[in-house]
Amino acid sequence: MRSEPARLRFEIGARDGAARTGVLQTRHGPVKTPAFIPLATKGTVRGLESHEVAALGYEMVLGNTYHLFVSPGPERIAKAGGLHGFMGWERALITDSGGFQVFSLAHGGVANEVKGSGRQGGDQGSVVSIEEEGVHFRSYRDGAELFISPEVSMQVQAALGSDIALVFDECTPFHADRDYTARSTGRTHRWLERCLEWHEREGPVRQAIFGIVQGGIYEDLRRESAEAVSSAAVDGLAIGGTLGRDKAEMREVLSMTAPLLPEAAPKHLAGIALGLDVFDCAVPTRLARHGVALVPDPDNRFRLDLRKSGHTGDRDPIAADCPCPACQNHDRDYLSYLSRAEELTAVRLLCIHNLTYLQELMVHARAAIEAERFNAYSRAVLSGESPWTA
Amino acid sequence: MRSEPARLRFEIGARDGAARTGVLQTRHGPVKTPAFIPLATKGTVRGLESHEVAALGYEMVLGNTYHLFVSPGPERIAKAGGLHGFMGWERALITDSGGFQVFSLAHGGVANEVKGSGRQGGDQGSVVSIEEEGVHFRSYRDGAELFISPEVSMQVQAALGSDIALVFDECTPFHADRDYTARSTGRTHRWLERCLEWHEREGPVRQAIFGIVQGGIYEDLRRESAEAVSSAAVDGLAIGGTLGRDKAEMREVLSMTAPLLPEAAPKHLAGIALGLDVFDCAVPTRLARHGVALVPDPDNRFRLDLRKSGHTGDRDPIAADCPCPACQNHDRDYLSYLSRAEELTAVRLLCIHNLTYLQELMVHARAAIEAERFNAYSRAVLSGESPWTA
Repeated sequence: MRSEPARLRFEIGARDGAARTGVLQTRHGPVKTPAFIPLATKGTVRGLESHEVAALGYEMVLGNTYHLFVSPGPERIAKAGGLHGFMGWERALITDSGGFQVFSLAHGGVANEVKGSGRQGGDQGSVVSIEEEGVHFRSYRDGAELFISPEVSMQVQAALGSDIALVFDECTPFHADRDYTARSTGRTHRWLERCLEWHEREGPVRQAIFGIVQGGIYEDLRRESAEAVSSAAVDGLAIGGTLGRDKAEMREVLSMTAPLLPEAAPKHLAGIALGLDVFDCAVPTRLARHGVALVPDPDNRFRLDLRKSGHTGDRDPIAADCPCPACQNHDRDYLSYLSRAEELTAVRLLCIHNLTYLQELMVHARAAIEAERFNAYSRAVLSGESPWTA
Repeated sequence: MRSEPARLRFEIGARDGAARTGVLQTRHGPVKTPAFIPLATKGTVRGLESHEVAALGYEMVLGNTYHLFVSPGPERIAKAGGLHGFMGWERALITDSGGFQVFSLAHGGVANEVKGSGRQGGDQGSVVSIEEEGVHFRSYRDGAELFISPEVSMQVQAALGSDIALVFDECTPFHADRDYTARSTGRTHRWLERCLEWHEREGPVRQAIFGIVQGGIYEDLRRESAEAVSSAAVDGLAIGGTLGRDKAEMREVLSMTAPLLPEAAPKHLAGIALGLDVFDCAVPTRLARHGVALVPDPDNRFRLDLRKSGHTGDRDPIAADCPCPACQNHDRDYLSYLSRAEELTAVRLLCIHNLTYLQELMVHARAAIEAERFNAYSRAVLSGESPWTA
């Protein structure tokens, strides 16, 4: 870990057990943590303008290096003033390394394992070869052969001009054996050094770098990786890779990995809705596309499927007292109809609802940590109370 | 024509040549004319909430009886407080009769002729038979056989609770010969009487009815129809049917038909962007879906295709000085990328732009008529000036 306030400053605030609040001070303003980070995968949060995402209270979004590399390409975005200028987003921006998407092509199941079983649609290209130097793959758009390596990833992220870049790593699938995982983790560490070398030499001076801890489900490999990444000149840490075959195994991997990381470091969890300081997740926007709203209903995995029957004539909002326009202006009857009719208005309204719901969850979690009642808050939410009343 | 202010009052304002301004006073507030009426085909204007459509300045939208009849059905909408309550729209509402869609199934080409060559997608069901009593057709959703007649159409529109209902008519294709058109127009007149009888007996007391003048491209049939419809107990008139095989023929049919109609009546033109007092059109929202923006560019039919190449690096907005968020917040480079990536955000922004553009066109047309400079305004707009500067 290095400490370069010019790149990124992380101020830890209140603590309550293992939980904590904090503020990431970026070039583009503060990000209060714990924070959920909406995906602006292809340069837009689904259906929303950037100023609307800011109005929901979000202080950071995640841009997808793989997608933006394939189209419209880093040169075009750089000319537009980086991803901030291109999409008109004035707050903090984090970019992933592209590794997750590239390796999900190779390992097939990774994306589905980590991100749920949703359709991966546009992501389906093909990997030609994985080498020490980098990965050759085909564009899902036009079949053109593309190459991504630690250097290319950092170069693209430099062009995107994100406040926080992630290093290029291999995301190993949970079914990889110990031997494969060990070799892959070793390569990820060598790639980390190449990322940092390129960035030191040619990267934007004020762009912060997060290293990624791999090691699969093997405690010794996780420990080895935590030590390697923590001792590198990174500004923060992300826990990467497939964390296990189910939620129990995921919790096990997380709880063995988190204590291995330096206390002071800001920590990011990629791909999964279970947070350290910062986490991103495709779920709220992907669910919206499929007509599913997040609701305080543990019996149904906190989901309300508006495309299922049974909502006809239902005059209740999606979630009582939710401050979003979907809940303030409309009932389940109408939203269910709109969603089944596959109207854009429904996707947008559900997106706004789901992002509001997660933002409320975070705002009230931070308040609960500050009031040293995070356990009670967490229990209440898990047992079905609304974030805004728990 | 009848004159029942309780249903609808039409106040003619300024005149300038043949053009005029006016105000339709409906149960749900005033509609300044000439007015463009956005389509809320399936109970929403594409990608927008009702309050957003109102914020763009629109005072009336059009609900589609055929689509809403097939799904979610009139009972469900009636229980939600009519279409106003269902979609949360508090201003004036006009509904078509369903005839246009039903007959476009039968005559195949009608919808494409009248509405342009766009994909008709969900509209493709099939007509089983056209009889004096009404039309049997199959639902495009589940193949169920449905029946629509003058009485059913009025009943559905009563359930929708629109401020203005249109009578059920047959929309004849331009390639129909004189004989078919004459027989069809006769049936349309008999259906008009049945609509009025049903409405008199069972319709909402304060719902106004517009009759529809048919007659194809034949001047004597148009005259006959104008007389028949004008002498019926209707509150306004619509010019219906296919108006010709091209714009020149359309202008000819319109200019022979319009003078045949009573001066005092509010007049609606269905399906085509060329107005009398009120007109509706699918173009602005359909174009948005296909990445096309309306712009002051007569050489390109006032269209800018953002999915074509050539916009990379273009820092200009879609239209200089346009007050919409697409033009205020973004450049062609970004919007072109978003639209090619088929992002919802692009469809929504282009929808808002196109509706803003048409609303500006109307606002400034009304001002020009009031200032007795409508001809100059019209010439300026047709030669490429922006509505807001012409």
